[in-house]
Amino acid sequence: MEFMDGTWKKDVCGWEDLMGEGLLNQEAVVEGAVHSIRNMGDVAFVILRRREGLFQTVFENEQVNVSIHELKEAMTVRVRGILCEEERAPHGRELRIRHVDILSCPAGPLPLAIDKWKMNTSLEAKLNYRSLSLRNIQERSKFKIQEALVRAFRDFLYEQGFTEIHTPKIGARGAEGGANMFKLSYFHKPAVLAQSPQFYKQMMVGVFDRVFETGPVFRAEKHNTKRHLNEYTSLDFEMGYIDSFEEIMAMETGFLQYAMEVLKKDYAKELEILKVELPDVSRIPAVRFDKAKELVAGKYNRKIRNPFDLEPEEEALIGQYFKEEYNADFVFVTHYPSKKRPFYAMDDPEDTRYTLSFDLLFHGLEITTGGQRIHDYDALRQKIADRGMEEEGMEQYLDTFKHGMPPHGGLGIGLERLTMQLLGEDNVRETCLFPRDLNRLEP
Amino acid sequence: MEFMDGTWKKDVCGWEDLMGEGLLNQEAVVEGAVHSIRNMGDVAFVILRRREGLFQTVFENEQVNVSIHELKEAMTVRVRGILCEEERAPHGRELRIRHVDILSCPAGPLPLAIDKWKMNTSLEAKLNYRSLSLRNIQERSKFKIQEALVRAFRDFLYEQGFTEIHTPKIGARGAEGGANMFKLSYFHKPAVLAQSPQFYKQMMVGVFDRVFETGPVFRAEKHNTKRHLNEYTSLDFEMGYIDSFEEIMAMETGFLQYAMEVLKKDYAKELEILKVELPDVSRIPAVRFDKAKELVAGKYNRKIRNPFDLEPEEEALIGQYFKEEYNADFVFVTHYPSKKRPFYAMDDPEDTRYTLSFDLLFHGLEITTGGQRIHDYDALRQKIADRGMEEEGMEQYLDTFKHGMPPHGGLGIGLERLTMQLLGEDNVRETCLFPRDLNRLEP
Repeated sequence: MEFMDGTWKKDVCGWEDLMGEGLLNQEAVVEGAVHSIRNMGDVAFVILRRREGLFQTVFENEQVNVSIHELKEAMTVRVRGILCEEERAPHGRELRIRHVDILSCPAGPLPLAIDKWKMNTSLEAKLNYRSLSLRNIQERSKFKIQEALVRAFRDFLYEQGFTEIHTPKIGARGAEGGANMFKLSYFHKPAVLAQSPQFYKQMMVGVFDRVFETGPVFRAEKHNTKRHLNEYTSLDFEMGYIDSFEEIMAMETGFLQYAMEVLKKDYAKELEILKVELPDVSRIPAVRFDKAKELVAGKYNRKIRNPFDLEPEEEALIGQYFKEEYNADFVFVTHYPSKKRPFYAMDDPEDTRYTLSFDLLFHGLEITTGGQRIHDYDALRQKIADRGMEEEGMEQYLDTFKHGMPPHGGLGIGLERLTMQLLGEDNVRETCLFPRDLNRLEP
Repeated sequence: MEFMDGTWKKDVCGWEDLMGEGLLNQEAVVEGAVHSIRNMGDVAFVILRRREGLFQTVFENEQVNVSIHELKEAMTVRVRGILCEEERAPHGRELRIRHVDILSCPAGPLPLAIDKWKMNTSLEAKLNYRSLSLRNIQERSKFKIQEALVRAFRDFLYEQGFTEIHTPKIGARGAEGGANMFKLSYFHKPAVLAQSPQFYKQMMVGVFDRVFETGPVFRAEKHNTKRHLNEYTSLDFEMGYIDSFEEIMAMETGFLQYAMEVLKKDYAKELEILKVELPDVSRIPAVRFDKAKELVAGKYNRKIRNPFDLEPEEEALIGQYFKEEYNADFVFVTHYPSKKRPFYAMDDPEDTRYTLSFDLLFHGLEITTGGQRIHDYDALRQKIADRGMEEEGMEQYLDTFKHGMPPHGGLGIGLERLTMQLLGEDNVRETCLFPRDLNRLEP
């Protein structure tokens, strides 16, 4: 009987072997994809792409079992040779090739020049050839940064006593209401895709006090803008026993501080590749919605057309105002009008036209919506009635409140938007692996 | 201007404060939900439920600002009192109450006795009142164990150089084929929900070498069994530059070993609450599909009806065989018949009726399907043609192979099934927060 014991012996070098002292001037075996070939005649530089970065190998004619003309870009190879120091090589190391095994061979030339440092390609082309364009070192680095953000979100919240949950994406009704729901037939019953895990995460506050989820949400919005995706990854948390909605803002600030530390510590390579300057998150200003509108109207000579709505241009100007006045990259805008928030938002008892809620703007773009929720059963039913909504389909959600819920609140962060703003991209599709929009359902 | 600096001062005790020495015999403030009240006349024990566990508070008449009769189960409260040692209390501590603030009040009596140690309630009732039944300490502990498994999966794979990805759940076509796809209209275009991230994770192997995803998948299967969910969380990884499909099995074994360590280290409380004995994963036997059928047929006197199919009873018997013969909780069954695997599975060059693939059985139930994939463009197209399939809708997937892909493979683990087997549950709905099946779309 054969047994697996969790180990696997490989004679191929890891990155640490390549960069360490142990194999220097000795024979080493390296695998990778041929990223580019620079043929100088007697000698050729064959740059391999590995997950850790680019690695230079040197092909000297008549020293190797194959001819340089047999090698092609986009091949994957296993190469044996001598590991040498070479200060002109990336990372100061190269492998002088003695033997090449070709692992796989492309069937045609690449449609994009992925070996360029900065790809000179339209977004449309990059998305059409997504699995190829992401082979570019800069392009793929964006998604390592994105990984860092999700990872930091989870690790920070674990530390703060949150429990991770997985809630269903198919349900009988949406949490946010409105028309922007994708509908499907679920074994002949009408169903929708989740616009957010809102109801579920609230229901789980009664169980775990603090919960989070990182997963897809679906919005059938018909806008085609640079800021909207119809499917995106939402970083959601919900926490009980809060003193006020500002405690949620404090938790988000703590997450952002933690995330910047994770980026600095473990993703320095990608920050360097993308030339990202991390924003200052040591303190984030908070301003009331109505006050923010006034400040912007005053400074930029704008008329307040609707005191209960915030236009995208106003959002951008609020960002600009706080950058100019406080050198702040982020700003919390608080007390959004009740009409602009879902029924479950808690109204401000001091002025019920507004809610105990907030958005977080990052360089003038909303990346988070959050706030305190109604936790009292009767108050929740009253709000539903006041809005002319039906309780049908919300029975189990409401039951949760009937049987006692602590004061609580939470937020949702759009992962792709957060990544986009951090990287200074101008289209959210740049920071989504496979974006879904009005026109794009593939790849 | 107000600023958030990431800190929030709370005068309420954390669990460490309650269990530490600093506040002993001093005044402390505790928050929680009233889990149960045991009224002894002069004194009452009010057990609070917090995310960390149960905490005993003691109510002595005329010492408190409220009457014991004002307190109800399922209230949430903030309690001030003296923190004392008391060896008969859970965790050896209790709070002698001086003051109670009621944070929220239930509007009706609980329909389930959640304060019982073991709930004597049907699965159906537990699911109908999911947000309430999970308030039971044993019930909620199952999902802490589930959290540990996902967390271990990610942390282990990060360490192994994997990149986390987020792939779309709405697409133009399914990866696994067949009829079990949920269909929807995507802005008047036909679309389906992802049965697995298969195509996307393969496409990303060409970019990151090693990738993983933890997210929902959707299967419109019409069976209603104890083992099936129509939406579940899939732990997927895919890795390039493999020597053979057994390297994937080694990686999974490594994950399981890591997960057991995480459970022992950080989830000992929940293991104790659920009386879970962790399985031995130091070595996992691997047996060929055809050999496994023979072994079971021989030992249990069963006729092999179809040499190319494995019935659920056979799966269970394979589990039983390896438990009896090798005291093994897990067994890898390898070389599944080609007909039973999707087109992208790599056939065994030594006998193309079988594939370089495997399932992992845990106590006789399949919890993983994995294997090596075809990486050669022409071979992949040939397999598609041989199966009478169309390339339409797979252009971008195929383009990935046209432009070079390393030898690779991967697997998908059903999170709820893994949790179910680990906990010794007999229905997968027990280990899914909000299960979706043929009849259940709510809550």
